[in-house]
Amino acid sequence: MKLHGYYRSSASFRVRIALNLKGIEYETIPHHLRKGEQRAPDYLKLNPQGFVPVLEDDGELLLQSMAIIEYLDEAYPFPPLLPGHPADRARVRAIAQMVSCDIHPIDNLRVLRYLRHELGHDEATVQRWYNHWIAEGFAALETFLAGSDQTGRFCHGETPTLADVCLVPQVVNSQNFKLDLEPYPTIRRIHEACLGYAAFEDALPKNQPDAE
Amino acid sequence: MKLHGYYRSSASFRVRIALNLKGIEYETIPHHLRKGEQRAPDYLKLNPQGFVPVLEDDGELLLQSMAIIEYLDEAYPFPPLLPGHPADRARVRAIAQMVSCDIHPIDNLRVLRYLRHELGHDEATVQRWYNHWIAEGFAALETFLAGSDQTGRFCHGETPTLADVCLVPQVVNSQNFKLDLEPYPTIRRIHEACLGYAAFEDALPKNQPDAE
Repeated sequence: MKLHGYYRSSASFRVRIALNLKGIEYETIPHHLRKGEQRAPDYLKLNPQGFVPVLEDDGELLLQSMAIIEYLDEAYPFPPLLPGHPADRARVRAIAQMVSCDIHPIDNLRVLRYLRHELGHDEATVQRWYNHWIAEGFAALETFLAGSDQTGRFCHGETPTLADVCLVPQVVNSQNFKLDLEPYPTIRRIHEACLGYAAFEDALPKNQPDAE
Repeated sequence: MKLHGYYRSSASFRVRIALNLKGIEYETIPHHLRKGEQRAPDYLKLNPQGFVPVLEDDGELLLQSMAIIEYLDEAYPFPPLLPGHPADRARVRAIAQMVSCDIHPIDNLRVLRYLRHELGHDEATVQRWYNHWIAEGFAALETFLAGSDQTGRFCHGETPTLADVCLVPQVVNSQNFKLDLEPYPTIRRIHEACLGYAAFEDALPKNQPDAE
């Protein structure tokens, strides 16, 4: 299996965690986003979006981190990253999407670039933007997690799921612009529990072969 | 079943299409986003994000449109909105996420409000922002769809899937700021095919009880 990614990409980080949790060996093929390597013609043939990650598995070309992780969970079912009951699966997916749809895309590199270069904003404004969307998203997620008896050691129960796989990279990401995590004790607790496991720790940006 | 939504909300529109495709009867509970009704304390108890849609089904409270649609597909399997093979399911989910993660969140009402009110941009700049992300996303999606023999009458094969359910509201949305759809013939063709079905047509914003 080959994972096209970038050490600092949150979406690649998610897939690395999932692969590690499943115990799947993979080869890392780094594409340096800040140097624009994801826009090379050969890479655009793999993914016309020019985004990482892309996973190659047995002739299949897989795009979009959450779709890749659901694929891994279907093709390599043990250990499962989603619970069994439809409503529980929906809860896990909803938490994953609170991060992956409602926080991460608005703070993506290409959006920050547009703010800087097309709209001419300074770094302080970009930092305020960045932290605004994480803080708004984390406040709602904290209320959601803290108010539910389905929250356990992890976002859902006592084993890691797709929800934790999406949450941890967002928390690591939030440290880039030094967001204060004090108002989110449940998120912090789950994040720390996750980092106690090699599957999460080994997937950290700093532990990747292309880390600078 | 009760659907908390708003006629103009793309995410609510997705769930309406899925419910219609499944032939599920539901009650619409409108929350007027532009009047801020989604921030009423009673609504925040249902969803601390203060977003629509929320689906209530038999005591279950379901958040996040893609999670809700996957739930519907698991709890009410006929007709299926995802194909059977894991790699095909991944393709459908990837298309859905190209829209729901990479276009829609950046053009959401709350983001446009931040551009206007926090950053002080004028309507022309907001319109350029809005169309930039749709055009960038649709260009990649057009290449992806046009280059694949798995694309059929719909985004994946000959029956509607989660991918079409996410695509159609984004195309309708793009008409708000009069984006030129001429460069995206495959997207236009699929969109028009979908609107030939009552499940899509009946879900249009203008056909909702809260439409103004």
